[in-house]
Amino acid sequence: MTPKYKNAHFTALVCAGLNPTFFMRNLPQLLDLFSSFSAKNPFPSTPAALYEPCSYILTLGGKRLRPALVLMAAELWDENIENALSVAWAVELFHNFSLMHDDIMDAAPLRRGQPTVHHLWNTTTAILSGDVMLIFAYRFLAQGGEAATVLRLLQIFNRVATEVCEGQQLDVNFETMSSVSIPEYLDMIALKTAVLLGGALEMGAAVARAPRQDAQHLYEFGRLAGIAFQIQDDLLDTYGNPEKFGKQVGGDILQNKKTLLVLKTLETASETDCQALQQWMQTSAEQGNIKIEAVRAIFDRNDIPALVAAEKAHFQHEAFQHLDAVSVPEARKTLLRQTVAELLEREN
Amino acid sequence: MTPKYKNAHFTALVCAGLNPTFFMRNLPQLLDLFSSFSAKNPFPSTPAALYEPCSYILTLGGKRLRPALVLMAAELWDENIENALSVAWAVELFHNFSLMHDDIMDAAPLRRGQPTVHHLWNTTTAILSGDVMLIFAYRFLAQGGEAATVLRLLQIFNRVATEVCEGQQLDVNFETMSSVSIPEYLDMIALKTAVLLGGALEMGAAVARAPRQDAQHLYEFGRLAGIAFQIQDDLLDTYGNPEKFGKQVGGDILQNKKTLLVLKTLETASETDCQALQQWMQTSAEQGNIKIEAVRAIFDRNDIPALVAAEKAHFQHEAFQHLDAVSVPEARKTLLRQTVAELLEREN
Repeated sequence: MTPKYKNAHFTALVCAGLNPTFFMRNLPQLLDLFSSFSAKNPFPSTPAALYEPCSYILTLGGKRLRPALVLMAAELWDENIENALSVAWAVELFHNFSLMHDDIMDAAPLRRGQPTVHHLWNTTTAILSGDVMLIFAYRFLAQGGEAATVLRLLQIFNRVATEVCEGQQLDVNFETMSSVSIPEYLDMIALKTAVLLGGALEMGAAVARAPRQDAQHLYEFGRLAGIAFQIQDDLLDTYGNPEKFGKQVGGDILQNKKTLLVLKTLETASETDCQALQQWMQTSAEQGNIKIEAVRAIFDRNDIPALVAAEKAHFQHEAFQHLDAVSVPEARKTLLRQTVAELLEREN
Repeated sequence: MTPKYKNAHFTALVCAGLNPTFFMRNLPQLLDLFSSFSAKNPFPSTPAALYEPCSYILTLGGKRLRPALVLMAAELWDENIENALSVAWAVELFHNFSLMHDDIMDAAPLRRGQPTVHHLWNTTTAILSGDVMLIFAYRFLAQGGEAATVLRLLQIFNRVATEVCEGQQLDVNFETMSSVSIPEYLDMIALKTAVLLGGALEMGAAVARAPRQDAQHLYEFGRLAGIAFQIQDDLLDTYGNPEKFGKQVGGDILQNKKTLLVLKTLETASETDCQALQQWMQTSAEQGNIKIEAVRAIFDRNDIPALVAAEKAHFQHEAFQHLDAVSVPEARKTLLRQTVAELLEREN
């Protein structure tokens, strides 16, 4: 045995059938490659009215979390991530298609502080440019490898894309429903946002031709972490540090959103507090700060932040058990583990 | 050589490597199979608000021309059309997705005499249900055969779907353009409607694993015939038999549409007639019949119907040359040839 095989980590990689000289990239390197790939694959120049809004929404920024998940998952098995870059771009296009259409449905004037597409152009443009972005997602998916891999990717993508639409529909339904249960809420956020994180990881595994069982564990890791993210978003919207939080703290309260804080209160608080909360949720937001303070006081005296944080911790714990179960050496999971853990600790 | 091989047609089939005992279905049989397939593949029941509009728009009827083209093309090579049925359904779902979104953009209250989805429900519903229909089209496409076939189908579908969006954008652009050339118009109708007919035939060939050159000829056949159909639509809208035509004859004139009749007039008529036509196109439709008669008189005295009919005949002729070039025995093309020829002779 040569000296270098004495290294335990190295041996573990060899035993797992993986190339031990494999160079694992860090997150900035992966995101740089992704950025170069997208720059090399611009939308067509004409019809400009169709494609300019697609380019525009993609310039509004964002953490590129979903493509990063595709690439980190693929790198667990394969250092050649050329095909994974195409799949990562497909996932980012899908995400931005859904944002463009959701913004119409929500009549949102701004996204990341910039005008939304339907606001800067018009609804027709936002519908049609969104449609073609979805189709472009499938075009890049079709470049994800050989035929068997593309079929596997297509099946994952179709399943997840369907669920995202179902989640958006449930979210729309909830606005007019008088009562929503916590399981219904968790199901909605899972479909609307979490399955795409799971799907991004599963597609990263698929493009690297990982074993199906590992791909499934990664999907569950992403889905459960995604639910934890969303619960964290609910908490931060009401309890975030105003200096670090990008939006107005208390926005959900002003919009009378049925967040997990609200649903937990309605499930656990006294009848008096439940009625008080429901009354506040029927008032308009004219005296914004008074309303925010009053609702927060109801949450506080019922220990809701701790109950909701415990719910988040539950999903977070379940998520990482699935990452543990993925059959690659632990050292290779470090980047993915740390990236998701850090996002679940963020304060903005 | 056995007696049955003395039959020339039979011999031709054998020489072409095709099963001579092959049973070719007629159009009603193909449409019955399609109808059974769609009945066996309903949309999910929940969320009802998402999927009911999808079922609804598919009940509004239509000739099912696109799925029929998929099936007729597949039957040129393969009597087992199980996979082709899935692809035919994918194409029909795509077509109905595009109708649902186009109806929002056109603010159309009716489709086939029934309320449009955005009118019966609302715009949010029509956007989201349309999105999920597009995704379902890809789901059924993924059931079009083994992986290599699905990848081939996906590439055709993606290319055509992109072009349909581009065509819709060009159509939107034309509404506000002061002048549109005839080549620009032909390009728009090709993208907006004709490429999907070509794509349906090409996908039918692909699902039956036909040679690429034959699939390409079928695509061109459908695309060119599709342009001829659209020119025929322009003619029928102004010159159709009111008793046979489903809509009001003269509708395009009342809506000031830049049809091929208008563009041909502006290209070939005297300056006086061009100015007269442009003036009529800036008037509202208060005195509908007077306007229709006046515009029709301009067309008539410039021999526009004959010029436009000649344009249609040109595309029709080119189309059938591509059908001639498909390398299967002529007898097998009869159904496809007759179906398209009859549609190009229709008077409503």
